[in-house]
Amino acid sequence: MTHHYTLTISCPDRTGIIAAVTGFIAQHGGFIVEANYYTEQEQQHFFMRQEIRANSLPFTTEEFASRFAPLADEFSMRWQLADSAIKKRLVVLVSRQDHCLDDLLHRWRNDELRVDIPCVISNHEDLRSFVEWHGIPFIYVEMRQDKAAAFAQIAALFESYRGDTLVLARFMQILPPALCQRYSGRIINIHHSFLPAFVGAKPYHQAYQRGVKLIGATCHYVTIDLDAGPIIEQDTVRIDHGDTVDDLVRYGRDIEKTVLARGLRYHVEDRVLLCGNKTIVFK
Amino acid sequence: MTHHYTLTISCPDRTGIIAAVTGFIAQHGGFIVEANYYTEQEQQHFFMRQEIRANSLPFTTEEFASRFAPLADEFSMRWQLADSAIKKRLVVLVSRQDHCLDDLLHRWRNDELRVDIPCVISNHEDLRSFVEWHGIPFIYVEMRQDKAAAFAQIAALFESYRGDTLVLARFMQILPPALCQRYSGRIINIHHSFLPAFVGAKPYHQAYQRGVKLIGATCHYVTIDLDAGPIIEQDTVRIDHGDTVDDLVRYGRDIEKTVLARGLRYHVEDRVLLCGNKTIVFK
Amino acid sequence: MTHHYTLTISCPDRTGIIAAVTGFIAQHGGFIVEANYYTEQEQQHFFMRQEIRANSLPFTTEEFASRFAPLADEFSMRWQLADSAIKKRLVVLVSRQDHCLDDLLHRWRNDELRVDIPCVISNHEDLRSFVEWHGIPFIYVEMRQDKAAAFAQIAALFESYRGDTLVLARFMQILPPALCQRYSGRIINIHHSFLPAFVGAKPYHQAYQRGVKLIGATCHYVTIDLDAGPIIEQDTVRIDHGDTVDDLVRYGRDIEKTVLARGLRYHVEDRVLLCGNKTIVFK
Amino acid sequence: MTHHYTLTISCPDRTGIIAAVTGFIAQHGGFIVEANYYTEQEQQHFFMRQEIRANSLPFTTEEFASRFAPLADEFSMRWQLADSAIKKRLVVLVSRQDHCLDDLLHRWRNDELRVDIPCVISNHEDLRSFVEWHGIPFIYVEMRQDKAAAFAQIAALFESYRGDTLVLARFMQILPPALCQRYSGRIINIHHSFLPAFVGAKPYHQAYQRGVKLIGATCHYVTIDLDAGPIIEQDTVRIDHGDTVDDLVRYGRDIEKTVLARGLRYHVEDRVLLCGNKTIVFK
Repeated sequence: MTHHYTLTISCPDRTGIIAAVTGFIAQHGGFIVEANYYTEQEQQHFFMRQEIRANSLPFTTEEFASRFAPLADEFSMRWQLADSAIKKRLVVLVSRQDHCLDDLLHRWRNDELRVDIPCVISNHEDLRSFVEWHGIPFIYVEMRQDKAAAFAQIAALFESYRGDTLVLARFMQILPPALCQRYSGRIINIHHSFLPAFVGAKPYHQAYQRGVKLIGATCHYVTIDLDAGPIIEQDTVRIDHGDTVDDLVRYGRDIEKTVLARGLRYHVEDRVLLCGNKTIVFK
Repeated sequence: MTHHYTLTISCPDRTGIIAAVTGFIAQHGGFIVEANYYTEQEQQHFFMRQEIRANSLPFTTEEFASRFAPLADEFSMRWQLADSAIKKRLVVLVSRQDHCLDDLLHRWRNDELRVDIPCVISNHEDLRSFVEWHGIPFIYVEMRQDKAAAFAQIAALFESYRGDTLVLARFMQILPPALCQRYSGRIINIHHSFLPAFVGAKPYHQAYQRGVKLIGATCHYVTIDLDAGPIIEQDTVRIDHGDTVDDLVRYGRDIEKTVLARGLRYHVEDRVLLCGNKTIVFK
Repeated sequence: MTHHYTLTISCPDRTGIIAAVTGFIAQHGGFIVEANYYTEQEQQHFFMRQEIRANSLPFTTEEFASRFAPLADEFSMRWQLADSAIKKRLVVLVSRQDHCLDDLLHRWRNDELRVDIPCVISNHEDLRSFVEWHGIPFIYVEMRQDKAAAFAQIAALFESYRGDTLVLARFMQILPPALCQRYSGRIINIHHSFLPAFVGAKPYHQAYQRGVKLIGATCHYVTIDLDAGPIIEQDTVRIDHGDTVDDLVRYGRDIEKTVLARGLRYHVEDRVLLCGNKTIVFK
Repeated sequence: MTHHYTLTISCPDRTGIIAAVTGFIAQHGGFIVEANYYTEQEQQHFFMRQEIRANSLPFTTEEFASRFAPLADEFSMRWQLADSAIKKRLVVLVSRQDHCLDDLLHRWRNDELRVDIPCVISNHEDLRSFVEWHGIPFIYVEMRQDKAAAFAQIAALFESYRGDTLVLARFMQILPPALCQRYSGRIINIHHSFLPAFVGAKPYHQAYQRGVKLIGATCHYVTIDLDAGPIIEQDTVRIDHGDTVDDLVRYGRDIEKTVLARGLRYHVEDRVLLCGNKTIVFK
């Protein structure tokens, strides 16, 4: 993995945006490793992502930013520059089920998912030992009494651990609206159905009752509307009449893990741009 | 393809059903080619399907039936015996889009789908020439004026052509409840979404608006509840942010075709048994 | 479908290529609809594809070419400019099996695959009526006697019908090396296995013997090495122990059709660039 | 999970086998939970698997065996009766890569995979701490000096830990032929390619060089022929030209894990029957 900067931009579409941006990069000797573009047709809004080799540029991200600002203004850009040397910090929320957590921590300890995990927070004690074996602080938050206080504590922990992203890795509690709004675009959930089918509780039971022939999982940003936020990634797996709800839960775990892992990867590599309630994912 | 009889049975579960049925078959020298069993746990209801080589039995289906009846009564069976030499008769309803029809007729003329297609009925003239090239009668039914009369005509055609199954191969009209009830379990539709997501009109537009990352198709029996009948088969295909509604429609056509073809195959081979609003599919 | 030009380029990688090309386009008011880039790391070779709205440019493809030439020379580019208004001409070779042909002609007559099909050539008469129903000339070429003469005739037909691409849609004859070389990068085959497994004849029988749990199909450019040319597209489908060779053939037809259709689509939209014996496919 | 017995049988095909076996079961009040049958056509060999509720039978597995023996002899059956209360014992061999091991141990500690893992053996020390956190003995075997001695030690450990199955969970050493033969049908490997493509070392590099558009993984029984044993389960995942060998390795890990997990599950639930160099898998 080389050291690179990732420049993500969105702005109203017009002629010459790519030329202007790549001209700016080329003018400073910047070597583009990966480039992606997309124009949303309904709003005529343009999105781009450039990965630039860090050592091909003669300046730091700060200087890049100050030099790039006039160009960005000219095109009314919303933009962001990420440095691959600065790892994103994921604060993970779990309840009792550990399959997504196990998968995340495995990818983390093998450096497949290049992030820091400053802490894991849970409303149950069950997973303490496993998390602590990894050398990661495990923080228990009591949720049965005062939920508002519990969520205030979670927000405080997220801040004090300087989290970038809050990951709900099968966290079986609904976040309060204020939290969803405060960290808009920074909270990622894995829902155990193929959304928009089977919103809410017990989606595998719903799927079993409906008699579907495939079940799915969805990784999405959390908004104040339950299970209705922008979708980052989804997948399905085939089932048949012989499968019980327990079988669905078991098959489902495997897709939940991989769908969350892929969605998180896109997110931490700055491959996901928001476009209304939809996502642009530059793979 | 050898000549065989297919015996399908459903009854309350208890000990000894398989033994009794296979004992009966063995006693007459019947050679079982394929056998499937399933017990639905909630209702404790048992389902089975046996394919028996026709020439291994010393009698006709009629005699089989009369000899088998006492056993069937003993176990309170609902049962059916199909003869592979007697092809099912599919009456196909289409509108303007021909991808499912083209696929069906191709499978039919190559004898992959072993059925008779006595006629194709449409509320548009567009596909007449293609259908007639196959030597199949094409019947136009005017639907813009009097829908009730049109559906009465369709029912009459279905009867006069001695149809077993009515296939809605992208027929863009909603069937009246009386028709759905009259031919319960005999009308098969292909819906262009992954049900229960995106019921009703323009599911690809709905999918586009929601920003899903996969789209799907569903083959199901038609009931009086729109797009809510027992599901026979489903599949999904991956899309991304760059795909327009037209792209979704294009990708969708490919899964609609294969999902309908698989669902129909299961149906005409008597592999589908109804269990409430769900299907048992013995593949 | 809007009218657009597609510019495809490959050249040694260095700083500033994207900036130079998009600068050139922007300078003439060119509106980029879709853009893709890729750098092959081993050879440090750069590939790009730009789709430009035709009416945003003030000149014809000829003038574009003459103005672009100096820039292309500076970067040692191999490049090509295609006009979406000029349809590619596919000459299709078939034998007796018609599933790929049926699929292609369906996509053609619905304008999903935007090509001209000036003729279909076959070493059997079986499919004449179906092809001619489409208004497409069907030409029978006798292959049992003198294969060299037959292939000379095929090449002559390809020339006289001004074919751009020769499509082997389950053509069960091996092309002579001279033909493969003469039309390098312009002959597309569908092979009925997941290459490199099961090269050559009867791949479904080979798959059955080996006891694999998935079978596949591969769309590739034809080279002088049998089934070893650059792969454009592949897919697999799950089978199980109960499936006979006939079942494999049946399942296989469905993936052959879709894999060939996808591969052809990429090819005719100039999305496939050759990189040694591999392909870059800008989807 | 209810307590059940699993009866697996293979014998020459003839009329009346199912009737005889299910008659025997019914006669003793046995309640069949799941039943599967298959006749291999080339050899006319019959295979069956019955799951019987343990408490529906009035006797132990020993008595079942002694009463069933005469029937088994009559039909020249090879047969086996497994008790779900007696967990299979998996001895796991690993090297340095831990993704399959992590996945296995997660499924084991959540009781998804109902087995005992008496020990994990490795030719590297890397994974000791992780294994021991689970309370499972980790045994290091030195392999750089004397391979024969090392494999003798592995065999001795397998015996002393009373292993039923030896699982090569990305164990990067080739087993000696004698070991393969001694534990025929009891050694399971995960190979990181879609066999028979890319046998042997570095399959992801081979796949990258060939330019395939999908990569795969294969779970199979180990025989003396390298990567050529009976295949239990396979799967593939889509890649594209932009993926490096490292990306292939990363994608591959996810399918290796799930393919091994599924294959092992089938094996420990006695769903896999050998038929020459192929497997019958009763899912």
